[in-house]
Amino acid sequence: MSITLQSIGTIHTPYLSFNTPHQPLPDAPGDFWITLNPEYASALKSLDNFNYIYVLYHLDQVTPPVELLTHSPWAPELEIGLFASRSPQRPNPIGLSIVQLKEIQGNELIISGIDAYNGTPLLDIKPYIQFRDSIDDANNGWFDILPDKEHTIAHALGLKHEHAHEHSHEHHHPHEHDDVHKQTHHSDPNHNQHSHHDRPSYEDGQDKPDHRRHHVHND
Amino acid sequence: MSITLQSIGTIHTPYLSFNTPHQPLPDAPGDFWITLNPEYASALKSLDNFNYIYVLYHLDQVTPPVELLTHSPWAPELEIGLFASRSPQRPNPIGLSIVQLKEIQGNELIISGIDAYNGTPLLDIKPYIQFRDSIDDANNGWFDILPDKEHTIAHALGLKHEHAHEHSHEHHHPHEHDDVHKQTHHSDPNHNQHSHHDRPSYEDGQDKPDHRRHHVHND
Repeated sequence: MSITLQSIGTIHTPYLSFNTPHQPLPDAPGDFWITLNPEYASALKSLDNFNYIYVLYHLDQVTPPVELLTHSPWAPELEIGLFASRSPQRPNPIGLSIVQLKEIQGNELIISGIDAYNGTPLLDIKPYIQFRDSIDDANNGWFDILPDKEHTIAHALGLKHEHAHEHSHEHHHPHEHDDVHKQTHHSDPNHNQHSHHDRPSYEDGQDKPDHRRHHVHND
Repeated sequence: MSITLQSIGTIHTPYLSFNTPHQPLPDAPGDFWITLNPEYASALKSLDNFNYIYVLYHLDQVTPPVELLTHSPWAPELEIGLFASRSPQRPNPIGLSIVQLKEIQGNELIISGIDAYNGTPLLDIKPYIQFRDSIDDANNGWFDILPDKEHTIAHALGLKHEHAHEHSHEHHHPHEHDDVHKQTHHSDPNHNQHSHHDRPSYEDGQDKPDHRRHHVHND
């Protein structure tokens, strides 16, 4: 049985399909907004009472195959099942992000950073309701069993944090990583799709430093 | 542009389409489980590290029309936009619930209570990740401006709570409400669909007591 959906709007971001981050970054630079198809504008009534919303969207740049085992960009050494990941390569390519709702102007919603490329088709908007959706006793799943859990989570949240260098005059400095991903695969049939799947683009051959090899983590 | 999805499994609950609750009730009696199509079983690897998951499903019992303005079962006096509600009557009928993941047995996931009727088609499973999905500074939207906010939220969470009676020997007693909804509309064309939309079934003519008329709230 197949299920047919329709795009009800468009998500606007500064991202192209190849430099979209792995997760919503609330403080990401640039403008992020949703244009809802005008015929639905009245259905936004009272949504401005909420400061966070769920945005559901069509991951329309994802191409087959769906791989049942994958690797998170945050723990590339760990093989996990697709459903234990937020990889965009899913049997049903529905993206789900929580973003801040900053303002509603007619049929446009000004939002905080969202991990979707510019032009992504909108499927639904649902209110994020604190008492229902913010689960105090939820855990972090396999993140909780990583040896460098705190550091990995800081990366996954896009937080500035400190690394200690491996040289004689050790010092600390805050940094941000340019962790981005691709929804589309390389067209090179010899490229190992499994190993680069859903990883930061610097692992796709771009010449970015890999701090994991050069730094000693101090957290 | 239309988007085609496929069911990847089935959600099993004790609910028929007419007695499904409005929200996931973690302590709901009965058995709740998801049967994932067997070809996807390996994609569950490492999901058992998470204690909560998002379940996305097809609200396949919803029938048109979609009404852009609606009423929450928890605040029937307040007219809100469809996108400020969790009404199942949406342009794209995608349901989203957070449930506890209790156990995985092969391609079956044992879960806590979910607000979906028995046989609901599964679209996706995503891990609920505490550091990413539990938003401390999220608000409750229009719930926060209700005069009886705390009491309404207790109802919406299905919590036992106390009501004071309006008679001479006032006493308190904990109770639970049998708040259920219908995804399908009455076939009676004269029935006012707007007024009963997404409300508890006792407002659909069933002979259930309405505590709001008979009790004085003590919270």
